[in-house]
Amino acid sequence: MVPIVSIVGKSDSGKTTFLEKVVKTLVNRGYKVGTIKHDAHSFEIDHQGKDSWRHKQAGAAVTVISSPAKIALVADADHDHTLAELRDKFFRDVHIIVSEGYKRETHPKIEVFRSELRRELLCTTDDNLIAIAGDPPDPPAGIPVFDLNDPGPICNYLEERFLRKETNADEQ
Amino acid sequence: MVPIVSIVGKSDSGKTTFLEKVVKTLVNRGYKVGTIKHDAHSFEIDHQGKDSWRHKQAGAAVTVISSPAKIALVADADHDHTLAELRDKFFRDVHIIVSEGYKRETHPKIEVFRSELRRELLCTTDDNLIAIAGDPPDPPAGIPVFDLNDPGPICNYLEERFLRKETNADEQ
Repeated sequence: MVPIVSIVGKSDSGKTTFLEKVVKTLVNRGYKVGTIKHDAHSFEIDHQGKDSWRHKQAGAAVTVISSPAKIALVADADHDHTLAELRDKFFRDVHIIVSEGYKRETHPKIEVFRSELRRELLCTTDDNLIAIAGDPPDPPAGIPVFDLNDPGPICNYLEERFLRKETNADEQ
Repeated sequence: MVPIVSIVGKSDSGKTTFLEKVVKTLVNRGYKVGTIKHDAHSFEIDHQGKDSWRHKQAGAAVTVISSPAKIALVADADHDHTLAELRDKFFRDVHIIVSEGYKRETHPKIEVFRSELRRELLCTTDDNLIAIAGDPPDPPAGIPVFDLNDPGPICNYLEERFLRKETNADEQ
């Protein structure tokens, strides 16, 4: 079962930038990483007028573009998929999945926190918070705090916890 | 096993336009249709600077964007996937897959042919040619010819052949 870790935080707290650093670091260490971005509304992908865009516009439920180096897919969804559903459909072949968002799910979470934006954490330890990246004034006991700008130590922690041993079923 | 039909033809013969008409017609008849576009080179999808684009650029092997109505995926590939591989990975839930291109594969093919562009067909019956859409001067015996601009009759033929009965294993 591929472990899932979610990066959560207030909007504009720098989740995407932090995720980029974590992904780059893990990839440099030789791991295959998958990422998931939640979009609450509609989003646009592909480019108007391209053949694949025309396929989807014509009513295809699923359109795939396949090349020797890259595959892309655009599919209709009939519900908001959970991380576990997305893992089962699309991520059979990675070592770890890092999601941006998905605060309400029960997977382990890293909260990105910048005290100039917010006074209190979004998550409690009940939310399966496993780490904080940033400068929380009063972090919960037992939750490690990492530097938002230095992904090395938090990647050591993720490796230790999810990548170097069998993952703990409780954390799935 | 989801049937696969490939629309092939010379470049600029109108494959995408014809595929759009066929997909619209089948969707209007209540079928769930998947499509596959082959791209021999690299292609761009997603939009520079968007969060999902940043995830992929950071080195994720697979990036998914998920919303309540739509899911998109961009993944690295280590080889040029066959139609059957793509079917097995991504198209578990459609009635039929229509591909654009993939002339060299053995799935049933419809050739789009316009005599002002070309004298001879690309396919022979050995290529598993099952129909021609257009105005071939000398179509092979036993291969039905359909109007390129009227998708109704060819969709009747596809329904009859692939959608109203168990598909013939030879045609897979």
